[in-house]
This record gives sequence, structure tokens and C-alpha cells, in this order.
Amino acid sequence: MQERQLIAKILNRFPQESAELIKGIGDDCAVFGSSPDLCWMTSTDVLVEDVHFVLKWHDAYRLGRKSIAVNLSDIAAMGGRPQFALVSLVLPAHISDPWLERFHAGAADMLENHSCLLIGGDISKGATLTINVMLIGSAHPEKVVYRSGGAEEQDIYVTGYLGASAAGLQLLKRGDAKPDYDNLIDAHLNPEPQIEIGRTLAERGLAMAMQDISDGLATDLSHICCESLIQGVIELETLPYTENFPDFCREYDSTPEDLALFGGEDYQLVFTAKRCDRDAITALADELDVPLTRVGQTKKGKGCVLLQQNGRVRDISYRGFEHI
Amino acid sequence: MQERQLIAKILNRFPQESAELIKGIGDDCAVFGSSPDLCWMTSTDVLVEDVHFVLKWHDAYRLGRKSIAVNLSDIAAMGGRPQFALVSLVLPAHISDPWLERFHAGAADMLENHSCLLIGGDISKGATLTINVMLIGSAHPEKVVYRSGGAEEQDIYVTGYLGASAAGLQLLKRGDAKPDYDNLIDAHLNPEPQIEIGRTLAERGLAMAMQDISDGLATDLSHICCESLIQGVIELETLPYTENFPDFCREYDSTPEDLALFGGEDYQLVFTAKRCDRDAITALADELDVPLTRVGQTKKGKGCVLLQQNGRVRDISYRGFEHI
Repeated sequence: MQERQLIAKILNRFPQESAELIKGIGDDCAVFGSSPDLCWMTSTDVLVEDVHFVLKWHDAYRLGRKSIAVNLSDIAAMGGRPQFALVSLVLPAHISDPWLERFHAGAADMLENHSCLLIGGDISKGATLTINVMLIGSAHPEKVVYRSGGAEEQDIYVTGYLGASAAGLQLLKRGDAKPDYDNLIDAHLNPEPQIEIGRTLAERGLAMAMQDISDGLATDLSHICCESLIQGVIELETLPYTENFPDFCREYDSTPEDLALFGGEDYQLVFTAKRCDRDAITALADELDVPLTRVGQTKKGKGCVLLQQNGRVRDISYRGFEHI
Repeated sequence: MQERQLIAKILNRFPQESAELIKGIGDDCAVFGSSPDLCWMTSTDVLVEDVHFVLKWHDAYRLGRKSIAVNLSDIAAMGGRPQFALVSLVLPAHISDPWLERFHAGAADMLENHSCLLIGGDISKGATLTINVMLIGSAHPEKVVYRSGGAEEQDIYVTGYLGASAAGLQLLKRGDAKPDYDNLIDAHLNPEPQIEIGRTLAERGLAMAMQDISDGLATDLSHICCESLIQGVIELETLPYTENFPDFCREYDSTPEDLALFGGEDYQLVFTAKRCDRDAITALADELDVPLTRVGQTKKGKGCVLLQQNGRVRDISYRGFEHI
């Protein structure tokens, strides 16, 4: 069973209503609270050795950073401010105390960069190194951005560059750690969560629907389209690539758009915005020095399609990266 | 390294101050919030196959219940009302869809019994079945009970009976599933979190310091003593045992107080109370039909000791059950 089907089954069994619950399962974070000025959001991600990471590629420090980053990314996607983290670790015998020290140093640095505090967790021995981080963020209840806020005739934007993490993973799998492509490997091993841009988009009311790109743009935009009851049209020639990414694709015989759309683990944000806000978004990109690229638009319909240069349209709904 | 030492190391690295943090690492739950009327508390526990449970003993339904119960127990220990749960699962190939259905049925029933909603989680494949539950509860900020609230010359109480879970575990290990001792096996496989009594003690201001008994009374009371800067004196002859527990101990050559003090996984509560509240506590036990037993008292000093019938005193500080 795929994760999406499993979640649908779980939703049937578990009710989702209470006075303090604002949004249950079905977005990057659940949102709860009882105050008119501040609500809380929470999300969790589990990382398993040899499923989500491989220790021969991933040093302890960067794994500590990434464990926090992938969860911060969910807070970013709702426009939240990171506040608290809980970290549970299952530690097999091959994990040494110095390794664990470096892991914690990486986690502590990433938390500190985003003013987030570790407030709990659990530690167990076990056969498989497993890292489960739970993050709690906060926001003004009226500023939270949901997947369902999109509408027809909006622009679709992404932050940063796409496909770099998938390219880095290919290099690691091949054992080709060329210095020319260090940035691609780092995109995979050490992603930066887009907290500041996510928060600012939310606070200024510029993002209508938002989601982080963890399973590839095609799948993650499909979530927005499904919840907003719209179709997403990605324009192929607009996909943003980092400088040496086309070189990598030529050298390694990869199709750039396949990595960008289906590659996964970019931890950038995809959001929809009103056309009247184009200038405000351009100004914001300059102000925060973050690339924001318009990659398409929404229209009546459903799912997610790719508009190619020859004018052909290809269905890419939920064609993404699944660990499970 | 033991869990306690690891946590001490982690605390040195991670700061614990923010405007919205009321209590960080170091109690059953962390407590946070921004409202004068309501605060939030959160805790997490990870359960790993062949460390915390064995599938040949633990059916899916009761494992689902227990996964939630052990976390609810932390909310109970702070006097909180359970609100939301996040459940992360790492599923190896040997876990079938029907098994997972029964696991979810158990988890859903336990959540429903305590009006708690599942609001998130994650699912991954992986070599070792791992269950990580995170619970969020709420309370009035002035009613939360901390480990640090104890003082000298208070009574020490426990809810329910001690040692039953450890006895049940012994029976399972020996493969002796006698119907006479079904209640002991059930105490291990299917513990009930003491939510109602914990909340009521907190709301009435009767519990000064409180903690759940997951690692054995000796260790868990030691946490209270350490945080409250007092000594706990347990009186051997007062320890409460369920009806057939002495029979079990005779038949299996076990020392009752060893199971009760060091056995672990009872998921009862231990708390301190003012002497002037003895009648109120007796009345509460009758009202809720929960056994509440005075098992000793606090005094000046540190750690936790056992007062034996011969008048001898034995140090039992932190002599408990450790999975790690």
C-alpha cells in the first residue's frame, strides 16, 4: 500500500473534530490552538537508515542538520515560526558516542539558526538507526497558509532551484564526488529549510496555497491542486536550475525536468499567488535575496500537467518520489 | 551511556529559554503556551520491536492500545487533558495490512477512550518495527503538576497496584500463559493510563509533585526527589499488590518488592500530597473507584530509600528498569 492510500484508510478510522483543532491530517502540519492571536502547528518526519539516508554518504553533523531541516520545511510551508522540537532516536550498536555528539551538534546548529528549542524526545537502543523529529511552530491563525487556499487563474511559484538534491543523490550513488558538483551533493545532504521566505509570504498574505517540495514538484503541487480543486500547469521552460545543473545533466545523461519534477528532497516551497501580486513577489525575492520563479499557473480542472515547448501537455499528477 | 547521562549531555548543548516555553526537558512533558487560561504539554515515546515489545507475545490490537497508553501516561502525570496524537511508524516487510488494521483499531480505541485525536504522523518502510507516538495535552497553566513541586513532610501515594506488569512479563518470557494470571499478563500488554485520576488530582490541587511509573517506583520517585530536593522514604509493608500477585511471587520465586520497586511499565502514578489532604485523597479514591495507597513520606535529604520491616533502610535511588 502506498503512503497516500494508507493515510486515506487511517483518516476513515480516526475522527478529526475538536474545539481546539483548526486543521487535522492532510496538510504539511496540523494546526491547533485556543487563542485568537496565536495558533500552533505540528508535523513529524521519520528518517530511517538505508531508506532515507546512508551513513557512508551522510556524515553525522549534516545528518543532524537535515533531520531538523526536513521538519522545519513543513513549518515553512504553512508560513509558521519554528518554536519547539522533540527528537527521538533509535540507536544501534554501531553508533558511537562521538558520532552522536556530532549529530547533536548539527541538530543544535540547525535549531539555533531558526530560534527553535529542543524540548523533549526519547532514546532507545534498536537494530536500525531511526530518527524521528517532531516540530512545533506558531503563527497568527489568520496568516496560516493551507494547501486548500489556491484558486483558478493564479500564478505558481517555487523558491530556489529544483532537481539539485536528486542530482546530488545520483552522484553519491555512483561514488562520483567531483568538487565541481559539491553544491549538488550538499543540496542532498544539507538542505536549507525555507523558513524566512515562507513566513514572510504568509505574513504579507502573498501565498494563497503553499506546500514544501519533498517528494518532487509534480507530487507536491498535486496535493495543492487536489485540496484547492484546481489544475496546476507547469511550463517546462520556466523550471529554475542552479548554474551547473545543466552541465551535470549533460554529463550524466539525465533529463533535467525529470529530476526537477520527480526527484524529491529539494525542500523548496511551491505556492500559488494572485496575478496582482507579481510585483510584490518580485520585490520580496530581491529583499530576501531568494530566487522566486513563476513556473506556471492554475486553471479549472484537476491534477497537475506539464506544458512542453512543442505545446503538448503531459499529465504529471502525483508522479513523484516515494520512499515507501 | 545511560539515557539519563545522555539527556544531561544534550541539555548542556541545547538552550531551554523562550517566551512561550513554560517547562523544557526534565519532566514527563514539556509545557508551552501563550495564554493565561490554557497551556499545552507534549511528550514522546518510541517503542522498538524486540526492545520494548515482542510480536509473538503482543497482538496488534493491544500493541496499538499500549503505544498510545504509554504516552497518555505522561500527560496523566502532569495532570493534563489529552488532546492530539502524532503516530510515526517504521514498517518492515513482515507487517501485513491486516496486522496494521488491528494495530490502528487498538490505537483508535485508546485515543477515543480519552477524547484524543490523531492529527499527524509519518510512515516509512524499514528493517525494524518502530512506533513513535507524540502526544499533546492541555491544562490550566496554574494546575499543571511538576516533578519539582514536592516538599519535606509530605505523603507519597501511588495509584493502582505495583509489579503486575513485571510479573506479566516474566510469565510471557517463560511461556506460562496460565488463565489464573491473565490479569498480570494484561497489565503488561494492555496498561491503562491514569488520565482521570491524574487530571482530578491536578484540578483539585491535591498532587504537589507527580510522575508516572514507567521505569519502576524506585527510579520514578527518584526523579521527583531530585527535582524537589527531598528524600523519598518508601515503607515496604505498604506497597499495594493486586490480589493474585503474592501467589504469583510464591509460585515463581520472585520477591514482590523487587518487582514493585524496580519492575517497570506499571504506568501508574506516584505523587506527593500534603498531610492535611489525607481525607480529600481518600474521598477521591472512593469517588473515582481507583486505589490510592499511601506508600511512604518525604523528608529532608536526597534520593529514595526503602524502610524495611526490621527498621533497616536501603538506598533504592534510581534502581530501576532501563530499556537502553
